[in-house]
Amino acid sequence: MIKGELFIISSPAGAGKTTLTNLLLEEDEKLKRVITYTTRKKRKNEIDGVDYVFVAKEVFELMIKENAFLEYAIVHGNYYGTPKKETFELLNQGFDVILVIDVQGMKQIKSVIPEAISIFILPPSLKELESRMRIRGESEEEIQKRLETAKREIPHWKEYDYIIINENLLESKENLSHIIKSQRFKRQRFNLSLIKDDELRSLML
Amino acid sequence: MIKGELFIISSPAGAGKTTLTNLLLEEDEKLKRVITYTTRKKRKNEIDGVDYVFVAKEVFELMIKENAFLEYAIVHGNYYGTPKKETFELLNQGFDVILVIDVQGMKQIKSVIPEAISIFILPPSLKELESRMRIRGESEEEIQKRLETAKREIPHWKEYDYIIINENLLESKENLSHIIKSQRFKRQRFNLSLIKDDELRSLML
Repeated sequence: MIKGELFIISSPAGAGKTTLTNLLLEEDEKLKRVITYTTRKKRKNEIDGVDYVFVAKEVFELMIKENAFLEYAIVHGNYYGTPKKETFELLNQGFDVILVIDVQGMKQIKSVIPEAISIFILPPSLKELESRMRIRGESEEEIQKRLETAKREIPHWKEYDYIIINENLLESKENLSHIIKSQRFKRQRFNLSLIKDDELRSLML
Repeated sequence: MIKGELFIISSPAGAGKTTLTNLLLEEDEKLKRVITYTTRKKRKNEIDGVDYVFVAKEVFELMIKENAFLEYAIVHGNYYGTPKKETFELLNQGFDVILVIDVQGMKQIKSVIPEAISIFILPPSLKELESRMRIRGESEEEIQKRLETAKREIPHWKEYDYIIINENLLESKENLSHIIKSQRFKRQRFNLSLIKDDELRSLML
């Protein structure tokens, strides 16, 4: 039995999923992130093993053969994948796990783990999305490519369990935190060992 | 279509449901409480129309005939009931509504409104429950009667959607707040009118 809860966060590039996830991880010690493996080139501000695990195409394809991914995809010619082993290890230790993946990845995971909880983060507007991409210093070509991807991804909001409009970063972080923490009180996750009083526990059996 | 969410809070007397509900109502302006009607005598520290609506037995029985209650019950010889009109008015205005009722009431409401969300609050121990009753200055007879009721009610925790152990009042209030607020981001409750950007909204249709 899986002890933790699996959360899937998706959003168009620039809507804030990575920043939000990092803010959540900082303040919630019961929540862990599984780092995505990728074959894309590392950007200047990224750290290997923190933002992504950067691997060679040959390594990634070997891992596919060994069925090492919970889901994987090719985006803009690069592989991205969620490692199975790390995910289940954390869940079995009782951690909640957050995966930052795209729409296709969400669907793959839901087909294997239907009880995973999916959250779609929307930008307040397309203009805002574009301007956040510009702040990140991406090239005009890259921006246009990502905007097209965003426009293809946004209609899939309807397939997610929860929807958050990221207008204000701290507010959105609070709202995500409500979604994550509320799951911990679901009856299905309640564990009688939390009750220290023998008399009360025996009434609850 | 009902716009708000209906929450049902139950707990043995003394486990803290009323205090917790009042704390929640103070800080969450989207949440409203429907005041229970009762025929029991007003206690010294209670206010009519705030803690309960205190009515005569004849009035209550007339309301039963007029089908004015969402649920009602007799507890220790007194009637308690949730008025239908107030509840639906608040829900239709878009408020979340919190009902503080017992196990039987929860079942009656779930049979009419299955999407209502039920939360059971547990004391950390039976000793703690008893000592909280003593602090409230109840008579020994009253305490014994309520303890017996508590022992009958506690096994029903299994029928609730969420379980909270009320060890620390402020922590429990936060946890209840997570449960209540997280529902506001469920896809089913998402309203396209929240999106002010025409371009983005048209992508989402």
